[in-house]
Amino acid sequence: MQELKDRIAKEGKVLPGNIIKVDGFLNHRVDTELLDHIAEEFGHHFNMDDVTVILTAEASGIALATIVARHFHKPMIFAKKAKSDNIEGGLYQSDIFSYTYKKKVTLLVSKEWLHAGDKVLVVDDFMANGEAMRGLCEIVEKAGAELVGIGCAVEKGFQGGGDRLREAGVNLKSLAIIESAGPDSIVFREN
Amino acid sequence: MQELKDRIAKEGKVLPGNIIKVDGFLNHRVDTELLDHIAEEFGHHFNMDDVTVILTAEASGIALATIVARHFHKPMIFAKKAKSDNIEGGLYQSDIFSYTYKKKVTLLVSKEWLHAGDKVLVVDDFMANGEAMRGLCEIVEKAGAELVGIGCAVEKGFQGGGDRLREAGVNLKSLAIIESAGPDSIVFREN
Repeated sequence: MQELKDRIAKEGKVLPGNIIKVDGFLNHRVDTELLDHIAEEFGHHFNMDDVTVILTAEASGIALATIVARHFHKPMIFAKKAKSDNIEGGLYQSDIFSYTYKKKVTLLVSKEWLHAGDKVLVVDDFMANGEAMRGLCEIVEKAGAELVGIGCAVEKGFQGGGDRLREAGVNLKSLAIIESAGPDSIVFREN
Repeated sequence: MQELKDRIAKEGKVLPGNIIKVDGFLNHRVDTELLDHIAEEFGHHFNMDDVTVILTAEASGIALATIVARHFHKPMIFAKKAKSDNIEGGLYQSDIFSYTYKKKVTLLVSKEWLHAGDKVLVVDDFMANGEAMRGLCEIVEKAGAELVGIGCAVEKGFQGGGDRLREAGVNLKSLAIIESAGPDSIVFREN
């Protein structure tokens, strides 16, 4: 998606440790108009009529998933991380390793809201090693629901998480795949 | 806002410890159409032409803040909690006590995205003791920005956080204020 690549090239910053910051429009300060264009683009790759629910993980995926849900008139569920007092029993859970926080976190979705028969589009803003996506897919499977696909805005291609999911047969569409990133240049995969 | 009160009365659950669950439409599974109606209602209480940015705190406030930002064509910023590797220096911060997690957390906003001259509408889905709101107001103040007001969907009136903010002169509008909650009934404040 050219608009997204242009924004990353213009406004993205590469920090030591291959951290790519797009926090001016995607995951700290959020440009909801851009998110709406991303949602529209997902509509060209997935059969949205078939989808019954949008699933993401807190926190930064929520903004994009909300806009996708609003755009296509679907409910949105965000998986919670770790255990808070606001969630009692009856949970689907999946342990993942968070690249951002360098520790294990548990994704939780209430059994009350995700069901066998649901057709799920997983949405996230960013994929590095793909752990959050893998965890969300595991939750979809535990619920006996069907994974329609994964819509991702920015994928760090060089970390391999996306390719592992594609090899596993998942219908993953990332709108900008970063192949390499240095202090002076960001190179995108042709897609 | 009658639509919101009706949803809370019909679908809300009261758990021991005065925890009110509205996770079927507000903060786990999210009904974005309802959020859009909430955004519209905020438009009747705040002069949105005057607002330059919507501010919330992760995680559950993000969905509503995103819809408000989309509805009124404003950028949205969500404060991050604790410190992740994705945020380096240059931060406004505020320590708050999280009722949900029963511990101190630090709200962080990059100085890059919030500025003196900004006119800020703080938005959150839920207010209990008002700590998150207080922290966000502190960040607005530290940035030298102007607080236009706070738009909150559901306030637990009996915990006093909202009234403390009102007494401090904050223009706070909550669309449903819960005055008391028992296993069989939820009573709203007239407003």
